[in-house]
Amino acid sequence: METAEYLEARRLLVDEALRRVLPPETAEPALLHRAMHYSIFGGGKRLRPVLVLAAGEAVGGAVEPLLPVAAVLELIHTYSLVHDDLPAMDDDDLRRGRPTSHRVFGEAVAILAGDALLTEAFGLLTAPDCVSRHDPKRLLTVIQEIAAAAGSRGMVGGQTLDIVSEGQAVDAAGLESVHRRKTGALIRASVRAGALLAGASQVQLEAITAYGEAVGLAFQIADDILNVEGEAATTGKAVGSDAAKGKATYPAVHGLAEAKARAAALLAEALKSLEPLDHRADPLRGIARFIVDRQR
Amino acid sequence: METAEYLEARRLLVDEALRRVLPPETAEPALLHRAMHYSIFGGGKRLRPVLVLAAGEAVGGAVEPLLPVAAVLELIHTYSLVHDDLPAMDDDDLRRGRPTSHRVFGEAVAILAGDALLTEAFGLLTAPDCVSRHDPKRLLTVIQEIAAAAGSRGMVGGQTLDIVSEGQAVDAAGLESVHRRKTGALIRASVRAGALLAGASQVQLEAITAYGEAVGLAFQIADDILNVEGEAATTGKAVGSDAAKGKATYPAVHGLAEAKARAAALLAEALKSLEPLDHRADPLRGIARFIVDRQR
Repeated sequence: METAEYLEARRLLVDEALRRVLPPETAEPALLHRAMHYSIFGGGKRLRPVLVLAAGEAVGGAVEPLLPVAAVLELIHTYSLVHDDLPAMDDDDLRRGRPTSHRVFGEAVAILAGDALLTEAFGLLTAPDCVSRHDPKRLLTVIQEIAAAAGSRGMVGGQTLDIVSEGQAVDAAGLESVHRRKTGALIRASVRAGALLAGASQVQLEAITAYGEAVGLAFQIADDILNVEGEAATTGKAVGSDAAKGKATYPAVHGLAEAKARAAALLAEALKSLEPLDHRADPLRGIARFIVDRQR
Repeated sequence: METAEYLEARRLLVDEALRRVLPPETAEPALLHRAMHYSIFGGGKRLRPVLVLAAGEAVGGAVEPLLPVAAVLELIHTYSLVHDDLPAMDDDDLRRGRPTSHRVFGEAVAILAGDALLTEAFGLLTAPDCVSRHDPKRLLTVIQEIAAAAGSRGMVGGQTLDIVSEGQAVDAAGLESVHRRKTGALIRASVRAGALLAGASQVQLEAITAYGEAVGLAFQIADDILNVEGEAATTGKAVGSDAAKGKATYPAVHGLAEAKARAAALLAEALKSLEPLDHRADPLRGIARFIVDRQR
Protein backbone atom coordinates (compact mmCIF):
# COMPACT_ATOMS: atom_id res chain seq x y z
CA MET A 1 0.00 0.00 0.00
CA GLU A 2 1.25 3.46 -0.88
CA THR A 3 1.69 5.88 2.02
CA ALA A 4 -1.12 8.20 0.94
CA GLU A 5 -3.47 5.25 0.66
CA TYR A 6 -2.33 3.85 4.02
CA LEU A 7 -2.75 7.23 5.74
CA GLU A 8 -6.23 7.65 4.32
CA ALA A 9 -7.35 4.13 5.27
CA ARG A 10 -6.06 4.49 8.83
CA ARG A 11 -7.44 8.02 9.14
CA LEU A 12 -10.90 6.68 8.37
CA LEU A 13 -10.54 4.00 11.04
CA VAL A 14 -9.41 6.61 13.56
CA ASP A 15 -12.34 8.89 12.69
CA GLU A 16 -14.71 5.97 13.16
CA ALA A 17 -13.14 5.18 16.52
CA LEU A 18 -13.40 8.82 17.60
CA ARG A 19 -17.09 8.87 16.70
CA ARG A 20 -17.60 5.70 18.68
CA VAL A 21 -15.75 6.73 21.85
CA LEU A 22 -16.56 10.42 22.25
CA PRO A 23 -19.73 11.23 24.27
CA PRO A 24 -22.47 12.22 21.78
CA GLU A 25 -23.05 15.88 20.95
CA THR A 26 -26.48 15.62 22.52
CA ALA A 27 -25.12 14.54 25.95
CA GLU A 28 -25.69 17.11 28.69
CA PRO A 29 -24.32 19.75 28.72
CA ALA A 30 -24.84 19.83 24.94
CA LEU A 31 -22.90 23.07 24.49
CA LEU A 32 -19.75 21.49 25.94
CA HIS A 33 -20.10 18.31 23.90
CA ARG A 34 -20.75 20.32 20.73
CA ALA A 35 -17.52 22.24 21.36
CA MET A 36 -15.63 18.97 21.87
CA HIS A 37 -17.01 17.55 18.62
CA TYR A 38 -16.34 20.80 16.75
CA SER A 39 -12.63 20.62 17.47
CA ILE A 40 -12.23 16.85 17.13
CA PHE A 41 -14.09 16.60 13.82
CA GLY A 42 -12.58 19.72 12.28
CA GLY A 43 -10.31 17.96 9.82
CA GLY A 44 -6.77 17.12 10.78
CA LYS A 45 -4.40 14.47 9.49
CA ARG A 46 -4.75 12.24 12.57
CA LEU A 47 -0.97 11.90 12.46
CA ARG A 48 -0.50 10.82 16.09
CA PRO A 49 -3.25 8.15 16.05
CA VAL A 50 -1.97 6.81 12.74
CA LEU A 51 1.52 6.61 14.23
CA VAL A 52 0.10 4.54 17.13
CA LEU A 53 -1.38 2.11 14.62
CA ALA A 54 1.62 2.04 12.28
CA ALA A 55 4.01 1.38 15.17
CA GLY A 56 1.85 -1.48 16.40
CA GLU A 57 1.60 -2.93 12.90
CA ALA A 58 5.36 -2.57 12.44
CA VAL A 59 5.91 -5.15 15.18
CA GLY A 60 3.13 -7.47 14.00
CA GLY A 61 0.25 -6.11 16.10
CA ALA A 62 -3.36 -5.86 14.96
CA VAL A 63 -4.95 -2.48 14.27
CA GLU A 64 -8.27 -3.01 15.98
CA PRO A 65 -7.18 -3.27 19.66
CA LEU A 66 -5.07 -0.13 19.23
CA LEU A 67 -7.92 2.08 18.01
CA PRO A 68 -9.04 3.39 21.44
CA VAL A 69 -5.45 4.35 22.28
CA ALA A 70 -5.02 5.95 18.87
CA ALA A 71 -8.18 8.01 19.48
CA VAL A 72 -6.81 9.12 22.84
CA LEU A 73 -3.69 10.61 21.26
CA GLU A 74 -5.92 12.73 19.01
CA LEU A 75 -7.98 13.91 22.00
CA ILE A 76 -4.83 15.07 23.77
CA HIS A 77 -3.42 16.72 20.65
CA THR A 78 -6.72 18.48 19.99
CA TYR A 79 -7.13 19.74 23.57
CA SER A 80 -3.64 21.25 23.31
CA LEU A 81 -4.60 23.06 20.10
CA VAL A 82 -7.81 24.43 21.64
CA HIS A 83 -5.89 25.85 24.59
CA ASP A 84 -2.93 27.04 22.48
CA ASP A 85 -5.30 29.06 20.29
CA LEU A 86 -6.85 30.96 23.24
CA PRO A 87 -6.51 34.77 23.37
CA ALA A 88 -4.24 34.50 26.42
CA MET A 89 -1.96 32.13 24.50
CA ASP A 90 -1.36 32.28 20.73
CA ASP A 91 -4.62 34.20 20.11
CA ASP A 92 -5.40 32.46 16.82
CA ASP A 93 -8.65 32.97 14.93
CA LEU A 94 -8.21 30.11 12.48
CA ARG A 95 -7.37 26.46 12.95
CA ARG A 96 -7.52 23.91 10.16
CA GLY A 97 -9.18 26.60 8.05
CA ARG A 98 -12.10 27.17 10.45
CA PRO A 99 -12.72 29.65 13.29
CA THR A 100 -11.01 28.48 16.48
CA SER A 101 -13.10 27.06 19.32
CA HIS A 102 -13.13 30.24 21.42
CA ARG A 103 -14.25 32.26 18.38
CA VAL A 104 -17.26 29.97 18.03
CA PHE A 105 -18.10 29.01 21.63
CA GLY A 106 -16.47 31.76 23.68
CA GLU A 107 -13.38 31.56 25.82
CA ALA A 108 -14.95 29.88 28.85
CA VAL A 109 -16.40 26.98 26.88
CA ALA A 110 -13.19 26.60 24.85
CA ILE A 111 -11.17 26.28 28.06
CA LEU A 112 -13.67 23.77 29.44
CA ALA A 113 -13.84 21.80 26.19
CA GLY A 114 -10.06 21.45 26.25
CA ASP A 115 -10.19 20.32 29.87
CA ALA A 116 -12.90 17.81 29.02
CA LEU A 117 -11.00 16.40 26.03
CA LEU A 118 -7.90 15.86 28.17
CA THR A 119 -9.91 14.21 30.94
CA GLU A 120 -11.82 12.08 28.44
CA ALA A 121 -8.49 10.83 27.07
CA PHE A 122 -7.67 9.18 30.37
CA GLY A 123 -11.25 8.01 30.70
CA LEU A 124 -10.97 6.18 27.37
CA LEU A 125 -7.65 4.58 28.28
CA THR A 126 -9.32 3.01 31.30
CA ALA A 127 -12.73 2.25 29.78
CA PRO A 128 -13.80 -1.41 29.45
CA ASP A 129 -13.39 -1.15 25.65
CA CYS A 130 -9.67 -0.51 26.12
CA VAL A 131 -9.00 -2.44 29.34
CA SER A 132 -10.51 -5.64 27.93
CA ARG A 133 -8.06 -5.65 25.01
CA HIS A 134 -4.78 -5.18 26.83
CA ASP A 135 -2.72 -6.55 29.67
CA PRO A 136 -3.53 -4.27 32.66
CA LYS A 137 0.07 -3.71 33.72
CA ARG A 138 1.18 -2.90 30.21
CA LEU A 139 -1.76 -0.53 29.82
CA LEU A 140 -0.82 1.27 33.05
CA THR A 141 2.72 1.71 31.69
CA VAL A 142 1.37 3.19 28.48
CA ILE A 143 -0.91 5.61 30.35
CA GLN A 144 2.09 6.63 32.43
CA GLU A 145 4.12 7.38 29.28
CA ILE A 146 1.31 9.34 27.69
CA ALA A 147 0.77 11.42 30.84
CA ALA A 148 4.50 12.15 31.12
CA ALA A 149 4.68 13.17 27.44
CA ALA A 150 1.64 15.44 27.75
CA GLY A 151 2.53 16.95 31.13
CA SER A 152 4.63 19.68 32.71
CA ARG A 153 7.93 18.22 31.55
CA GLY A 154 6.53 17.34 28.13
CA MET A 155 3.96 19.07 25.95
CA VAL A 156 2.58 21.57 28.50
CA GLY A 157 6.14 22.43 29.51
CA GLY A 158 7.04 23.02 25.86
CA GLN A 159 4.06 25.28 25.34
CA THR A 160 5.04 27.25 28.45
CA LEU A 161 8.58 27.74 27.15
CA ASP A 162 7.19 28.70 23.76
CA ILE A 163 4.90 31.35 25.27
CA VAL A 164 7.42 32.87 27.66
CA SER A 165 10.14 33.01 25.01
CA GLU A 166 7.99 34.90 22.50
CA GLY A 167 9.85 37.92 21.20
CA GLN A 168 13.03 36.84 23.00
CA ALA A 169 16.26 35.62 21.46
CA VAL A 170 16.38 31.84 21.61
CA ASP A 171 19.50 29.88 20.79
CA ALA A 172 19.63 26.60 18.88
CA ALA A 173 19.69 24.44 22.01
CA GLY A 174 16.76 26.31 23.57
CA LEU A 175 14.75 25.99 20.39
CA GLU A 176 15.36 22.25 20.13
CA SER A 177 14.35 21.84 23.78
CA VAL A 178 11.02 23.60 23.12
CA HIS A 179 10.38 21.51 20.02
CA ARG A 180 11.22 18.21 21.70
CA ARG A 181 8.77 18.96 24.50
CA LYS A 182 6.01 20.70 22.63
CA THR A 183 5.64 18.32 19.69
CA GLY A 184 8.28 15.63 20.02
CA ALA A 185 7.24 14.12 23.35
CA LEU A 186 3.69 13.24 22.28
CA ILE A 187 4.81 11.84 18.91
CA ARG A 188 7.41 9.70 20.68
CA ALA A 189 4.71 8.52 23.13
CA SER A 190 2.38 7.71 20.21
CA VAL A 191 4.75 5.27 18.54
CA ARG A 192 5.88 3.79 21.86
CA ALA A 193 2.26 3.25 22.96
CA GLY A 194 1.49 1.34 19.76
CA ALA A 195 4.66 -0.71 19.95
CA LEU A 196 4.36 -1.52 23.67
CA LEU A 197 0.73 -2.61 23.45
CA ALA A 198 1.48 -4.71 20.39
CA GLY A 199 4.14 -6.57 22.38
CA ALA A 200 7.31 -5.15 20.82
CA SER A 201 10.64 -6.73 21.76
CA GLN A 202 13.27 -4.53 23.39
CA VAL A 203 15.14 -4.16 20.10
CA GLN A 204 11.95 -3.24 18.26
CA LEU A 205 10.94 -0.78 20.96
CA GLU A 206 14.30 0.96 20.86
CA ALA A 207 14.18 1.21 17.07
CA ILE A 208 10.69 2.70 17.18
CA THR A 209 11.60 5.10 19.99
CA ALA A 210 14.56 6.45 18.01
CA TYR A 211 12.30 6.74 14.98
CA GLY A 212 9.71 8.67 17.03
CA GLU A 213 12.29 11.11 18.36
CA ALA A 214 13.66 11.87 14.90
CA VAL A 215 10.23 12.13 13.30
CA GLY A 216 8.85 14.29 16.12
CA LEU A 217 11.55 16.89 15.66
CA ALA A 218 11.37 16.67 11.86
CA PHE A 219 7.64 17.29 12.05
CA GLN A 220 8.04 20.51 14.00
CA ILE A 221 10.78 21.79 11.70
CA ALA A 222 8.62 20.99 8.66
CA ASP A 223 5.77 22.82 10.36
CA ASP A 224 7.96 25.87 10.92
CA ILE A 225 9.07 25.79 7.27
CA LEU A 226 5.45 25.56 6.12
CA ASN A 227 4.56 28.57 8.24
CA VAL A 228 7.11 30.55 6.21
CA GLU A 229 6.56 29.01 2.76
CA GLY A 230 3.09 27.48 2.79
CA GLU A 231 -0.14 28.93 1.50
CA ALA A 232 -2.93 29.83 3.90
CA ALA A 233 -5.41 27.97 1.72
CA THR A 234 -3.61 24.67 2.24
CA THR A 235 -2.13 25.10 5.75
CA GLY A 236 -5.42 26.42 7.15
CA LYS A 237 -3.71 29.19 9.08
CA ALA A 238 -2.15 32.53 8.33
CA VAL A 239 1.26 32.37 6.62
CA GLY A 240 4.04 34.09 8.51
CA SER A 241 2.01 34.07 11.74
CA ASP A 242 4.94 32.62 13.72
CA ALA A 243 7.27 35.42 12.62
CA ALA A 244 4.61 38.05 13.35
CA LYS A 245 4.36 36.77 16.92
CA GLY A 246 8.13 36.70 17.41
CA LYS A 247 8.01 32.90 17.82
CA ALA A 248 11.26 31.04 17.95
CA THR A 249 11.25 28.78 14.89
CA TYR A 250 13.83 26.70 13.10
CA PRO A 251 13.96 28.93 10.01
CA ALA A 252 14.19 32.04 12.24
CA VAL A 253 17.13 30.68 14.22
CA HIS A 254 18.97 28.72 11.53
CA GLY A 255 17.73 30.10 8.22
CA LEU A 256 15.50 28.30 5.74
CA ALA A 257 18.22 26.32 3.93
CA GLU A 258 19.66 24.96 7.16
CA ALA A 259 16.17 24.10 8.42
CA LYS A 260 15.51 22.06 5.29
CA ALA A 261 18.85 20.30 5.57
CA ARG A 262 18.12 19.43 9.20
CA ALA A 263 14.70 18.01 8.30
CA ALA A 264 16.30 15.85 5.59
CA ALA A 265 18.95 14.62 8.03
CA LEU A 266 16.27 13.71 10.58
CA LEU A 267 14.37 11.78 7.90
CA ALA A 268 17.53 9.79 7.15
CA GLU A 269 17.99 9.20 10.88
CA ALA A 270 14.40 7.99 11.26
CA LEU A 271 14.78 5.55 8.36
CA LYS A 272 18.09 4.27 9.68
CA SER A 273 16.53 3.69 13.13
CA LEU A 274 14.04 1.33 11.54
CA GLU A 275 16.70 -0.95 10.00
CA PRO A 276 16.08 -3.73 12.58
CA LEU A 277 12.43 -3.89 11.43
CA ASP A 278 11.13 -5.69 8.35
CA HIS A 279 8.65 -4.66 5.63
CA ARG A 280 5.86 -4.34 8.17
CA ALA A 281 7.50 -1.04 9.17
CA ASP A 282 7.08 0.35 5.63
CA PRO A 283 4.10 2.53 6.66
CA LEU A 284 6.28 4.11 9.37
CA ARG A 285 8.96 4.74 6.72
CA GLY A 286 6.39 6.28 4.38
CA ILE A 287 5.00 8.51 7.14
CA ALA A 288 8.49 9.85 7.91
CA ARG A 289 8.94 10.79 4.24
CA PHE A 290 5.46 12.29 4.15
CA ILE A 291 6.13 14.43 7.21
CA VAL A 292 9.27 15.97 5.76
CA ASP A 293 7.88 16.44 2.24
CA ARG A 294 4.32 17.49 3.06
CA GLN A 295 2.95 20.69 1.61
CA ARG A 296 0.38 21.32 4.34
CA MET B 1 -9.66 10.76 67.79
CA GLU B 2 -11.76 13.89 67.47
CA THR B 3 -12.66 15.01 63.97
CA ALA B 4 -10.56 18.19 64.08
CA GLU B 5 -7.57 16.18 65.23
CA TYR B 6 -8.18 13.49 62.59
CA LEU B 7 -8.54 16.09 59.83
CA GLU B 8 -5.34 17.82 60.85
CA ALA B 9 -3.33 14.59 61.10
CA ARG B 10 -4.51 13.40 57.69
CA ARG B 11 -4.06 16.83 56.13
CA LEU B 12 -0.42 16.74 57.17
CA LEU B 13 0.05 13.32 55.58
CA VAL B 14 -1.59 14.55 52.38
CA ASP B 15 0.62 17.66 52.29
CA GLU B 16 3.66 15.44 52.74
CA ALA B 17 2.49 13.18 49.91
CA LEU B 18 1.88 16.19 47.66
CA ARG B 19 5.39 17.47 48.32
CA ARG B 20 6.79 14.04 47.50
CA VAL B 21 4.88 13.44 44.29
CA LEU B 22 4.75 16.84 42.61
CA PRO B 23 7.69 17.70 40.30
CA PRO B 24 9.99 20.13 42.16
CA GLU B 25 9.59 23.88 41.68
CA THR B 26 13.04 23.96 40.13
CA ALA B 27 12.16 21.49 37.35
CA GLU B 28 12.20 23.02 33.87
CA PRO B 29 10.21 25.07 33.02
CA ALA B 30 10.50 26.55 36.51
CA LEU B 31 7.79 29.16 35.92
CA LEU B 32 5.22 26.44 35.23
CA HIS B 33 6.27 24.34 38.20
CA ARG B 34 6.25 27.40 40.47
CA ALA B 35 2.67 28.10 39.37
CA MET B 36 1.68 24.50 40.08
CA HIS B 37 3.22 24.66 43.57
CA TYR B 38 1.68 28.07 44.25
CA SER B 39 -1.83 26.73 43.81
CA ILE B 40 -1.29 23.33 45.41
CA PHE B 41 0.41 24.70 48.52
CA GLY B 42 -1.90 27.66 49.00
CA GLY B 43 -3.74 26.32 52.01
CA GLY B 44 -6.91 24.36 51.55
CA LYS B 45 -8.59 21.80 53.76
CA ARG B 46 -7.57 18.82 51.59
CA LEU B 47 -11.14 17.59 51.98
CA ARG B 48 -11.15 15.27 48.96
CA PRO B 49 -7.84 13.57 49.78
CA VAL B 50 -8.88 13.14 53.42
CA LEU B 51 -12.14 11.57 52.21
CA VAL B 52 -10.11 9.07 50.15
CA LEU B 53 -8.18 8.09 53.26
CA ALA B 54 -11.16 8.07 55.63
CA ALA B 55 -13.19 5.89 53.23
CA GLY B 56 -10.31 3.43 52.95
CA GLU B 57 -9.88 3.35 56.71
CA ALA B 58 -13.61 2.89 57.21
CA VAL B 59 -13.37 -0.51 55.52
CA GLY B 60 -10.16 -1.51 57.28
CA GLY B 61 -7.63 -0.29 54.73
CA ALA B 62 -4.24 1.25 55.57
CA VAL B 63 -3.58 4.95 55.00
CA GLU B 64 -0.17 4.74 53.41
CA PRO B 65 -1.00 2.96 50.11
CA LEU B 66 -3.83 5.43 49.53
CA LEU B 67 -1.71 8.56 49.81
CA PRO B 68 -0.79 8.86 46.09
CA VAL B 69 -4.46 8.54 45.13
CA ALA B 70 -5.43 11.06 47.81
CA ALA B 71 -2.87 13.50 46.40
CA VAL B 72 -4.33 13.02 42.92
CA LEU B 73 -7.78 14.14 44.05
CA GLU B 74 -6.26 17.37 45.32
CA LEU B 75 -4.42 17.95 42.03
CA ILE B 76 -7.68 17.60 40.12
CA HIS B 77 -9.60 19.79 42.54
CA THR B 78 -6.89 22.45 42.41
CA TYR B 79 -6.65 22.48 38.61
CA SER B 80 -10.42 23.06 38.50
CA LEU B 81 -10.09 26.04 40.86
CA VAL B 82 -7.26 27.57 38.81
CA HIS B 83 -9.34 27.37 35.64
CA ASP B 84 -12.59 28.43 37.35
CA ASP B 85 -10.90 31.58 38.61
CA LEU B 86 -9.75 32.70 35.13
CA PRO B 87 -11.03 36.02 33.74
CA ALA B 88 -13.04 34.18 31.06
CA MET B 89 -14.72 32.10 33.78
CA ASP B 90 -15.51 33.38 37.29
CA ASP B 91 -12.87 36.14 37.08
CA ASP B 92 -11.81 35.88 40.72
CA ASP B 93 -8.89 37.79 42.18
CA LEU B 94 -8.71 35.92 45.46
CA ARG B 95 -8.57 32.23 46.30
CA ARG B 96 -7.93 30.91 49.77
CA GLY B 97 -7.06 34.48 50.78
CA ARG B 98 -4.29 34.91 48.20
CA PRO B 99 -4.20 36.34 44.68
CA THR B 100 -5.41 33.79 42.13
CA SER B 101 -2.92 32.06 39.85
CA HIS B 102 -3.61 34.24 36.82
CA ARG B 103 -3.15 37.39 38.92
CA VAL B 104 0.32 36.19 39.89
CA PHE B 105 1.54 34.31 36.80
CA GLY B 106 -0.65 35.69 34.04
CA GLU B 107 -3.48 33.99 32.22
CA ALA B 108 -1.41 31.85 29.86
CA VAL B 109 0.64 30.26 32.63
CA ALA B 110 -2.47 29.79 34.80
CA ILE B 111 -4.20 27.90 32.00
CA LEU B 112 -1.09 25.79 31.43
CA ALA B 113 -0.57 25.14 35.16
CA GLY B 114 -4.14 23.86 35.38
CA ASP B 115 -3.57 21.63 32.36
CA ALA B 116 -0.35 20.34 33.90
CA LEU B 117 -1.97 19.58 37.27
CA LEU B 118 -4.73 17.60 35.57
CA THR B 119 -2.25 15.66 33.45
CA GLU B 120 0.02 15.06 36.43
CA ALA B 121 -2.94 13.54 38.31
CA PHE B 122 -3.18 10.73 35.78
CA GLY B 123 0.60 10.47 35.72
CA LEU B 124 0.64 9.86 39.47
CA LEU B 125 -2.12 7.27 39.32
CA THR B 126 0.02 5.25 36.92
CA ALA B 127 3.44 5.94 38.47
CA PRO B 128 5.38 3.01 39.97
CA ASP B 129 4.73 4.41 43.47
CA CYS B 130 0.98 3.89 42.97
CA VAL B 131 1.00 0.88 40.64
CA SER B 132 3.20 -1.16 42.99
CA ARG B 133 0.70 -0.80 45.85
CA HIS B 134 -2.51 -1.81 44.11
CA ASP B 135 -4.03 -4.53 42.00
CA PRO B 136 -3.67 -3.28 38.38
CA LYS B 137 -7.25 -4.04 37.34
CA ARG B 138 -8.69 -2.38 40.42
CA LEU B 139 -6.46 0.63 39.86
CA LEU B 140 -7.68 0.93 36.26
CA THR B 141 -11.27 0.89 37.54
CA VAL B 142 -10.49 3.68 40.00
CA ILE B 143 -8.80 5.80 37.32
CA GLN B 144 -11.88 5.26 35.14
CA GLU B 145 -14.16 6.50 37.95
CA ILE B 146 -12.01 9.53 38.65
CA ALA B 147 -11.87 10.48 34.96
CA ALA B 148 -15.64 10.11 34.62
CA ALA B 149 -16.24 12.24 37.73
CA ALA B 150 -13.87 14.95 36.54
CA GLY B 151 -14.95 14.97 32.89
CA SER B 152 -17.59 16.37 30.57
CA ARG B 153 -20.49 14.62 32.30
CA GLY B 154 -19.08 15.34 35.75
CA MET B 155 -17.09 18.28 37.10
CA VAL B 156 -16.28 20.02 33.80
CA GLY B 157 -19.89 19.56 32.71
CA GLY B 158 -21.08 21.11 35.98
CA GLN B 159 -18.79 24.08 35.56
CA THR B 160 -20.09 24.57 32.02
CA LEU B 161 -23.69 24.56 33.23
CA ASP B 162 -22.74 26.94 36.03
CA ILE B 163 -21.12 29.40 33.62
CA VAL B 164 -23.83 29.34 30.96
CA SER B 165 -26.62 29.69 33.51
CA GLU B 166 -25.12 32.79 35.15
CA GLY B 167 -27.73 35.50 35.42
CA GLN B 168 -30.46 33.13 34.24
CA ALA B 169 -33.34 31.71 36.23
CA VAL B 170 -32.49 28.20 37.39
CA ASP B 171 -35.06 25.90 38.95
CA ALA B 172 -34.46 23.56 41.86
CA ALA B 173 -33.82 20.51 39.67
CA GLY B 174 -31.41 22.41 37.45
CA LEU B 175 -29.52 23.71 40.45
CA GLU B 176 -29.16 20.27 41.99
CA SER B 177 -27.93 18.90 38.66
CA VAL B 178 -25.19 21.56 38.52
CA HIS B 179 -24.18 20.88 42.13
CA ARG B 180 -24.08 17.11 41.69
CA ARG B 181 -21.80 17.45 38.69
CA LYS B 182 -19.65 20.36 39.75
CA THR B 183 -18.82 19.28 43.31
CA GLY B 184 -20.68 16.07 44.02
CA ALA B 185 -19.15 13.85 41.36
CA LEU B 186 -15.55 14.31 42.51
CA ILE B 187 -16.43 13.90 46.21
CA ARG B 188 -18.32 10.70 45.36
CA ALA B 189 -15.29 9.49 43.36
CA SER B 190 -12.97 10.32 46.28
CA VAL B 191 -14.72 8.08 48.77
CA ARG B 192 -15.30 5.34 46.20
CA ALA B 193 -11.62 5.38 45.21
CA GLY B 194 -10.52 4.93 48.82
CA ALA B 195 -13.06 2.19 49.49
CA LEU B 196 -12.40 0.29 46.24
CA LEU B 197 -8.64 0.28 46.66
CA ALA B 198 -8.96 -0.78 50.30
CA GLY B 199 -10.97 -3.80 49.17
CA ALA B 200 -14.48 -2.79 50.31
CA SER B 201 -17.24 -5.38 50.09
CA GLN B 202 -20.27 -4.61 47.90
CA VAL B 203 -22.31 -3.60 50.97
CA GLN B 204 -19.54 -1.35 52.25
CA LEU B 205 -19.06 0.22 48.82
CA GLU B 206 -22.75 0.98 48.48
CA ALA B 207 -22.87 2.53 51.95
CA ILE B 208 -19.89 4.71 51.18
CA THR B 209 -21.23 5.71 47.77
CA ALA B 210 -24.53 6.85 49.30
CA TYR B 211 -22.54 8.72 51.95
CA GLY B 212 -20.45 10.42 49.25
CA GLU B 213 -23.48 11.54 47.30
CA ALA B 214 -25.16 13.06 50.35
CA VAL B 215 -21.98 14.70 51.61
CA GLY B 216 -21.08 16.04 48.17
CA LEU B 217 -24.35 17.88 47.84
CA ALA B 218 -24.30 19.00 51.48
CA PHE B 219 -20.84 20.45 50.93
CA GLN B 220 -21.94 22.61 48.01
CA ILE B 221 -25.02 23.85 49.88
CA ALA B 222 -22.87 24.70 52.90
CA ASP B 223 -20.48 26.51 50.56
CA ASP B 224 -23.34 28.53 49.09
CA ILE B 225 -24.56 29.42 52.60
CA LEU B 226 -21.05 30.51 53.61
CA ASN B 227 -20.84 32.72 50.55
CA VAL B 228 -23.87 34.59 51.91
CA GLU B 229 -23.10 34.50 55.63
CA GLY B 230 -19.38 33.98 55.96
CA GLU B 231 -16.66 36.52 56.55
CA ALA B 232 -14.09 37.21 53.87
CA ALA B 233 -11.33 36.90 56.44
CA THR B 234 -12.19 33.27 57.16
CA THR B 235 -13.58 32.11 53.78
CA GLY B 236 -10.69 33.67 51.87
CA LYS B 237 -12.95 35.10 49.20
CA ALA B 238 -15.33 37.99 48.82
CA VAL B 239 -18.65 37.56 50.64
CA GLY B 240 -21.70 37.78 48.42
CA SER B 241 -19.60 37.17 45.30
CA ASP B 242 -22.00 34.47 44.04
CA ALA B 243 -24.98 36.79 44.23
CA ALA B 244 -23.04 39.60 42.56
CA LYS B 245 -22.32 37.28 39.60
CA GLY B 246 -25.93 36.11 39.34
CA LYS B 247 -24.84 32.56 40.21
CA ALA B 248 -27.51 29.98 40.87
CA THR B 249 -27.06 28.98 44.51
CA TYR B 250 -29.12 27.06 47.03
CA PRO B 251 -29.95 30.10 49.17
CA ALA B 252 -30.85 32.11 46.04
CA VAL B 253 -33.26 29.46 44.74
CA HIS B 254 -34.68 28.15 48.03
CA GLY B 255 -33.97 30.84 50.62
CA LEU B 256 -31.47 30.60 53.46
CA ALA B 257 -33.68 28.73 55.96
CA GLU B 258 -34.60 26.04 53.45
CA ALA B 259 -30.95 25.71 52.39
CA LYS B 260 -29.94 25.10 56.01
CA ALA B 261 -32.70 22.55 56.48
CA ARG B 262 -31.63 20.72 53.33
CA ALA B 263 -28.00 20.59 54.51
CA ALA B 264 -29.13 19.16 57.86
CA ALA B 265 -31.28 16.55 56.09
CA LEU B 266 -28.35 15.53 53.90
CA LEU B 267 -26.16 15.16 56.98
CA ALA B 268 -28.74 12.82 58.51
CA GLU B 269 -28.86 10.90 55.22
CA ALA B 270 -25.07 10.58 55.11
CA LEU B 271 -24.97 9.25 58.69
CA LYS B 272 -27.77 6.81 58.00
CA SER B 273 -25.96 5.51 54.91
CA LEU B 274 -23.02 4.54 57.09
CA GLU B 275 -25.09 2.33 59.43
CA PRO B 276 -23.69 -0.91 57.93
CA LEU B 277 -20.18 0.26 58.89
CA ASP B 278 -18.58 0.01 62.34
CA HIS B 279 -16.58 2.48 64.43
CA ARG B 280 -13.84 2.61 61.82
CA ALA B 281 -16.22 4.85 59.84
CA ASP B 282 -16.30 7.41 62.67
CA PRO B 283 -13.94 9.78 60.86
CA LEU B 284 -16.33 9.75 57.86
CA ARG B 285 -19.18 10.55 60.25
CA GLY B 286 -17.21 13.38 61.81
CA ILE B 287 -16.29 14.82 58.41
CA ALA B 288 -19.97 14.91 57.38
CA ARG B 289 -20.81 16.91 60.53
CA PHE B 290 -17.81 19.15 59.96
CA ILE B 291 -18.87 19.88 56.38
CA VAL B 292 -22.35 20.98 57.36
CA ASP B 293 -21.29 22.95 60.44
CA ARG B 294 -18.06 24.51 59.16
CA GLN B 295 -17.59 28.23 59.38
CA ARG B 296 -15.17 28.49 56.46
